[in-house]
This record gives sequence, structure tokens and C-alpha cells, in this order.
Amino acid sequence: MKILVINAGSSSLKYQLIDMADQSVLAKGQCERIGIDGSLLKHTPAGKDTVKIEEAMPNHTKAITLVLDALCNKDHGVVSSLEEISAVGHRVVHGGEFFKSSVLIDDGVKEAIKACFDLAPLHNPANLIGIEACEEAMGSGVPQVAVFDTAFHQTMPDYAYMYGVPYDAYENYKVRRYGFHGTSHKYVANRVAEIMGKKVEDLKIVTAHLGNGSSIAAVDCGKSVDTSMGFTPLAGILMGTRSGDIDPAIITYLKDKYSMTAEEVINTLNKESGVYGVSGISSDFRDLMAAADSGNKRAQLALDMFIYQVKRYIGAYAAAMGGVDVIVFTAGIGENTKEIRFGSCEGLEFMGVKIDAVKNDMRGEEALISTDDSKVKVYVVPTNEELMIAMDTKAIVEG
Amino acid sequence: MKILVINAGSSSLKYQLIDMADQSVLAKGQCERIGIDGSLLKHTPAGKDTVKIEEAMPNHTKAITLVLDALCNKDHGVVSSLEEISAVGHRVVHGGEFFKSSVLIDDGVKEAIKACFDLAPLHNPANLIGIEACEEAMGSGVPQVAVFDTAFHQTMPDYAYMYGVPYDAYENYKVRRYGFHGTSHKYVANRVAEIMGKKVEDLKIVTAHLGNGSSIAAVDCGKSVDTSMGFTPLAGILMGTRSGDIDPAIITYLKDKYSMTAEEVINTLNKESGVYGVSGISSDFRDLMAAADSGNKRAQLALDMFIYQVKRYIGAYAAAMGGVDVIVFTAGIGENTKEIRFGSCEGLEFMGVKIDAVKNDMRGEEALISTDDSKVKVYVVPTNEELMIAMDTKAIVEG
Repeated sequence: MKILVINAGSSSLKYQLIDMADQSVLAKGQCERIGIDGSLLKHTPAGKDTVKIEEAMPNHTKAITLVLDALCNKDHGVVSSLEEISAVGHRVVHGGEFFKSSVLIDDGVKEAIKACFDLAPLHNPANLIGIEACEEAMGSGVPQVAVFDTAFHQTMPDYAYMYGVPYDAYENYKVRRYGFHGTSHKYVANRVAEIMGKKVEDLKIVTAHLGNGSSIAAVDCGKSVDTSMGFTPLAGILMGTRSGDIDPAIITYLKDKYSMTAEEVINTLNKESGVYGVSGISSDFRDLMAAADSGNKRAQLALDMFIYQVKRYIGAYAAAMGGVDVIVFTAGIGENTKEIRFGSCEGLEFMGVKIDAVKNDMRGEEALISTDDSKVKVYVVPTNEELMIAMDTKAIVEG
Repeated sequence: MKILVINAGSSSLKYQLIDMADQSVLAKGQCERIGIDGSLLKHTPAGKDTVKIEEAMPNHTKAITLVLDALCNKDHGVVSSLEEISAVGHRVVHGGEFFKSSVLIDDGVKEAIKACFDLAPLHNPANLIGIEACEEAMGSGVPQVAVFDTAFHQTMPDYAYMYGVPYDAYENYKVRRYGFHGTSHKYVANRVAEIMGKKVEDLKIVTAHLGNGSSIAAVDCGKSVDTSMGFTPLAGILMGTRSGDIDPAIITYLKDKYSMTAEEVINTLNKESGVYGVSGISSDFRDLMAAADSGNKRAQLALDMFIYQVKRYIGAYAAAMGGVDVIVFTAGIGENTKEIRFGSCEGLEFMGVKIDAVKNDMRGEEALISTDDSKVKVYVVPTNEELMIAMDTKAIVEG
């Protein structure tokens, strides 16, 4: 079974075609500048060079049509006809409280995705456009599945997802913790159990998705019971350019000091804050580490803050679950930055965490990085959201 | 040595006269409605009935004069003359980054307290008025000491006190975590070490000050290394009417939904949120527990959230310190509510915490409430901020 995975943005569309027989990626690529002059499709068949196709894409339907053409093309295609594509899995950012798992798309599902526009105004409309473009380009015979960033976290108990705000804000305006990166947290939690030869139902796992956006989750018996992102992806630990949690009173204080609107402050907290805002240098951890090595104190501070906040969440989530069996690091920073992994586990010996400096000296692959006698196992597991989307899609179309 | 402890608000003034020989309270009371019609002084000499003195108090100087008169009064007084009062200790809410400990007040100190008006606009001006009123009423011969709510937390490392906001907000506008209730955290941390017959320098302590306002601190070797309140007392766990930490993006979302200003949202988060906002019933935990017992689900939710958030902080701070030897509960809820104490420690067996249900069945006094074999000791220690202020004052005037 071959499954097409789609991640549609407002002017972009990423895709992967995955062969579920061996979970291999047959081709991947992305459309850029959809609806803008200079539209471009970059298409990479497995093991071959990237093909650049410059052709006008006035809308997402045209973009999808070009992607499907590329996949079937006799030179750089990877299937002989569209009929080989059994289903499409779509990344959808926000499923609100409607979706606790992935779902076969029908009119009701599309309505629910629309009902969440308000909660993810930048993402959900684009995700829905991607879905409708696929329906138009591929016809109703190909099942389409929605896989939500929020769904995995819908198992959180109320005392973890509710905020201390007036109840009306929840009841009438849906203000609560949703959490994001759910597909990634789900993937690495299940994958680490597989690697360990255990059932995910028997494990208490802290999953640390540390990338440009970062979130940490407590996964107890395979279910997310808490996560650091909140109502939006701004909350939790500080990130590349996002502040993470701050005292809410800071917003009105900064608004006055900088003569900004509250919206401008939130924009600053999303785009000019985090390790970038603290260091004044970069949101890229390689730049920060180079600067810190050359003695830049604010770069060092940003790294120290990041490490410290990850560590605090590991402790908090161990407490939330009544213990922890495994810690998993994933995503750009989690997979590739040994210093961050080492720092966030340092000092956690009291709860049975012992990282092995030699084993930890690696990047980008599945590995056990705790010592043999570490009660809590620590792993690196590269995330694979596309594969998770394809797996969910396969499971749903197979019933 | 007898020390007068003053806590001045904008229209009120609380006091205690403490005899440092045996740390006994000779008298205490408060002036109400200062500067407002119907001013009233309630004065209670130790072991005697409260005396109500109704007399106009157009300003704090007049209020202090009445307090001093009451303390020397031949009927309800407790000293024969003002000369018996060796010093005055003032509670001052915000010391910014100026004060890392209590300090003898001089003109420079008063200037620094003024420089922090912006950081505590409701409290610092009133605190300064109280200081100046005492100087005027008692003359320059009586040493006055300022004891700051923030000072104890000034030992936090930068990676704990900095927020992930642009550095300029710290550098030019002093945006950082300050923490509050420092006098209480300091008192109970030192007191619990004394009770245990250990040096505070040898202990890792989590102090949970749970009252109408609540904050939790990590006290490592006698120094605060992190605390849950932040730039203002709004941050941290949800409280009686305060939200605690929320996703900052909620502020602009609620602003739009309720057609409020950002300032009105922050006001709502301070005054109509927390367990009151979630339950819709009360900010008083006795009311919440009664309602929850009668099956009120939102009251139960508010209690569950409070307990869960305390537990998460205990775990986070254990991680921050690389372990924990002692957990101390204090303040109204911490001293009196066994259910909250039990709930927040439940499930922490993995880190060596075992609470004893029988020992925990008490209120309002110093007690060890963990089991004999609990690796982490859990105590209740009633806080005594006035005594701590008097102790600091004594230490400073004695050099």
C-alpha cells in the first residue's frame, strides 16, 4: 500500500509518498509560492536528484495536480499510475476537542476542521485547502485521512488541560491546553517501546521534542497525560524564537514600556523571543554553541535556560506520572545536540537517570544513551511525523 | 530587645511588637481606613481583648502615632515608654535587583524602594509611606530596617530568573523572575532545618507556601534557586483568584472574545481566576472542599488542578536541585489542609516521598508528616513572616 502524506501551508505544500510494505519513502518534495508569482515544485525521487519544476500554481489544486503528475512522470516519477496511491494522509494542526485520534475525512470532519479555524488561524484553513485540493484532483475514490497535531494529547486529564482562568473561557471559547507535536510524541513513544521490546502500555515515558518549536510530553501507558505547549504553540519551554511560559502580567507591562499593542507583544513573543531574543544572535543552536564557545555570555545564557527548562519539565512530568521509565529525545535539537541532552539529564541521578557520555556522543539515529545501570533509560529516536501519518492513514483505510 | 514590625498598605497598617528575648508577641493589631472616613485601630495586647480605637487617621503618620500611643497606653499598652522599642522592621514588597537581603534604611535605600515603584505599583509606595511615617513619629534615633519579599530569591541563578523574552526587556525594563513570599520561604526553610537538627546549608528543600497567594520555592543549601511566582505575584500555580501560569497567547484571545482591554484581562486573571474562576464558587478551600463533597464537579476540578500543579512543581524543583531532602508545607492551606498536602505528595514515592496519613491528620502546628522510612522528609511548619522580619531587624541593628 502506497500512501501520500500531505502537509499544506498557506502558500506551500509538502509531500511524501510512502510504501507501507517497507515504510520506505518513494519520493518527497514541496511546492513553494502557491498563489504567488514564481511558483516552484521541488521533487525528489528516492535516491535521485531533485527535479525543479517551475510552473504557475494559482491555487493548491493546481499544486496537487503537479505533484501527482511528478509522481507518475516517466522520467522522475515513482509510480506508473495514480491508482497505485491507495490513500492520502493530511497533517491538520488543530482538531480542538473534536478529534481524539486520526479520522477518515467526510463533510462532518471538514466542518469540524473549520470550527477550529479560530484556534489555529494560520494553519487550519491551509490544511483544509490542501484536503479539498486533493479531493478535487484525485476524486472521491481515494480515501483521505486527517491526522491532527492535537489529537494525541486529547487523553490529558482535565486537571492537566484546564487553566486557572474563569470557567466560561473554557465553556464558551474553548480555552484549554491542547498541546501540539502530537504526531511526533506518539511516534517516538511507540517507537521507543518497540526498540526496547516492551509494550508502550507498560511504560512511563517523557518525550522531549526539541526542534525549532519544542514541546515535552508525559506519556503514561501510551497516552499523553500532559504536555508543555498549551492553548497555542507559544507556551512551554523557550524555543528558537518563542518565549515559552512567562508571567502573563509581562504582556501589559511590555505593551506600556514599548508603546505596542497587546497583539504586537504576542507577535514579539512568537517571533523575536526564545533563545534568539535572549542571545540576540540566532535561533539556531549551532550558532549559539559556537558563540558560547567564543565567550558570548548571552548565547551561553540562552543555552543554559533551554537546558534548565527541559530538566524542570522532565522532573515535573515524572512527578505527574508517579515516575518515569524512559526519556526520549527527538527532533532537530533532540536528535543532534548531545550537549542539550547531557545537560538536561545532568543532576537527575536522584531519580535514576544516568546518561552515558560516550554513548551520547552521536547524532541523528536511534540509540540508547543511558548507562547500563541507569534505572531510567534514555534514548534518541529520530521523529518521523510523515511515517506516523501514513501509519495512521493505513490503519484507518484498512478499518 | 523589642522590635516593632510594620506592614503598611495603601489604607491600612498592620503591626506586631515582638520581644526578641523569647520571640513572644507582646501586642499586635491593625489600622484600617487610613485617609478615609471611619478610620479604626484594632489593638490586641497578648492574652487580652482587642481594643477598638476610633479616631481620624488622615495619614499614615497619624496612624503610627496612634499605634505607638496604644503600645504605651497605661490600660492596654505593653511597654512603659517608646524607648523600649529598639528598632522597627518594615515589610517591603519589592526590592528589585537592589536588595539581596534586609537592610538598614537610609536615604539611598528609600531611593531604591522608589526606583521599584514601577515593579510593585500597589505595594512599594505604601511601604515607603509606612517607613517615612515611622521616621516622623519616632525620630531618627530608632533604626528602621527594610525586609523585602523579593530579597530571599535574589540568589536564583540567571538561567532560572530570566525569561525567554528579548534581552532588552531585562536590560532596560527589569523584566525577570523576582519571586515573592521570600520572607516566608526563608523562615520555614531555616526553621525546618532547626527542627531536624541539621544545618540548612546541608539540605535541599522544597518550600510550599500555599495560601490565598501561593508560591513554591527550591531552597538549596539555604539559598533560593527557583520559585514559582515571577515578575509579579500572578505567576506560578493557580491560586485563590489568580490564574498562575497560562499560555501568554490566551490574553489577546480573551481580549477579543470578551471585548476587553489587555489590562482588563490581566485584572481578570488576578481577581476572578484561580480556583474561584474555575469553580465559580469561592476562593476559600473550605468552601471548595464542602462543595466537592456535595458533588460539585467544578469545585473538585479546581482542587485537583491545585494539587496537580503543586505536585508538578515539587518534581520540577527536585530536578532543579538534583534531588530533595525535605518538603515543607506552610501558610493557610499548607498548614491546615491535609487533603492538599496528601494529594500533592501522592505518587511521589518514586522519588522517596512517603506521606503518613495518620501523622498528616493535623493542622496548624509544626509536625513531621512523612513515614519513618520516607527518604524525603515532609513537614508542616506554620510560617511567621513577622518573626522573620523581627529576626532580620535584630541581626542588622546588632551589626
